[in-house]
Amino acid sequence: MKAYLAGPDVFLPNAHENAAAKIAICAKYGIIGRPPLNEDIARILTLPEDQAWRAIYLKDIEMMEECGIIIANLTPFRGASADSGTLVELGWFLGRGKKVFGYSNTAAPFAARSAAHVAVIPDPIRGLAVEGFGLPDNLMIPGAVEYGGGLPVFLPPNGEDRAFDALDVFETCVAAAARSV
Amino acid sequence: MKAYLAGPDVFLPNAHENAAAKIAICAKYGIIGRPPLNEDIARILTLPEDQAWRAIYLKDIEMMEECGIIIANLTPFRGASADSGTLVELGWFLGRGKKVFGYSNTAAPFAARSAAHVAVIPDPIRGLAVEGFGLPDNLMIPGAVEYGGGLPVFLPPNGEDRAFDALDVFETCVAAAARSV
Repeated sequence: MKAYLAGPDVFLPNAHENAAAKIAICAKYGIIGRPPLNEDIARILTLPEDQAWRAIYLKDIEMMEECGIIIANLTPFRGASADSGTLVELGWFLGRGKKVFGYSNTAAPFAARSAAHVAVIPDPIRGLAVEGFGLPDNLMIPGAVEYGGGLPVFLPPNGEDRAFDALDVFETCVAAAARSV
Repeated sequence: MKAYLAGPDVFLPNAHENAAAKIAICAKYGIIGRPPLNEDIARILTLPEDQAWRAIYLKDIEMMEECGIIIANLTPFRGASADSGTLVELGWFLGRGKKVFGYSNTAAPFAARSAAHVAVIPDPIRGLAVEGFGLPDNLMIPGAVEYGGGLPVFLPPNGEDRAFDALDVFETCVAAAARSV
């Protein structure tokens, strides 16, 4: 089983080491991890911008097509919610009828993070109301994970945030995904 | 043609008026607009949280199944990118092979918004690198729109942000979507 390893991990300064560690964890559980790192990114980034981004998009979609499941890093990224590109990919797997799994290294619930965000960067309109429902993110995200893969979004077990690039919650998620596919 | 009207519009204090205005604009162009407002939200919110969010999720997915296209409001929401629930829905339509259209009321490109965000709320790790490519959001988003619907993400034409709930860019998007489906 090939798993698309979606997440903001691709933006890490040590993205290749992180991807290698994730692939090794997946292998322990019989899963072939496929991180959306473009191996020829150096070449791609020499292209004009309008060609470069399309080359990355098409390669990512091609990799998604090859994978039977997604294991998404849903740790919040530059806002109250998970990384935006990751969310498009999460929805794509759900729409394709492929299995959806996810985890986050952040323990704080969505409602608390949203309130903290708005306290620092006010909304453009007063009275914007997003229900938290005690969930880790906007309900479409745990919904896609629970209805798409049959498991909850995995969170730090003791309620304490992990480092942004920690891999223990990822491993718990991979192990559970491997048992269920 | 039924269009799923995704967006953070559902969180507006006047969400029902906004939805009615969007439906009227769609009707001008021969499109049946379906906003993901749960008409029995008052009843749903009396349920326990774990039942309420699942009821909303399942009703939204049911509405998405009924619609042939998505017209997504991709205006940034509580972060550098578009609303998180909207992005899951955008990806779902792409994965389903249904047509994808989108617009934003924000003219500033993603790279500038990301830099402004990080200046106020620093990243958890130094050196996180997201290429902007001159795009309105993470490349998966204009990618989903361009490859999924054949049109770009519609933006304010004169480079000036519209109000969060303005509808002129939405109307431009609806008119173009109507011509292309």
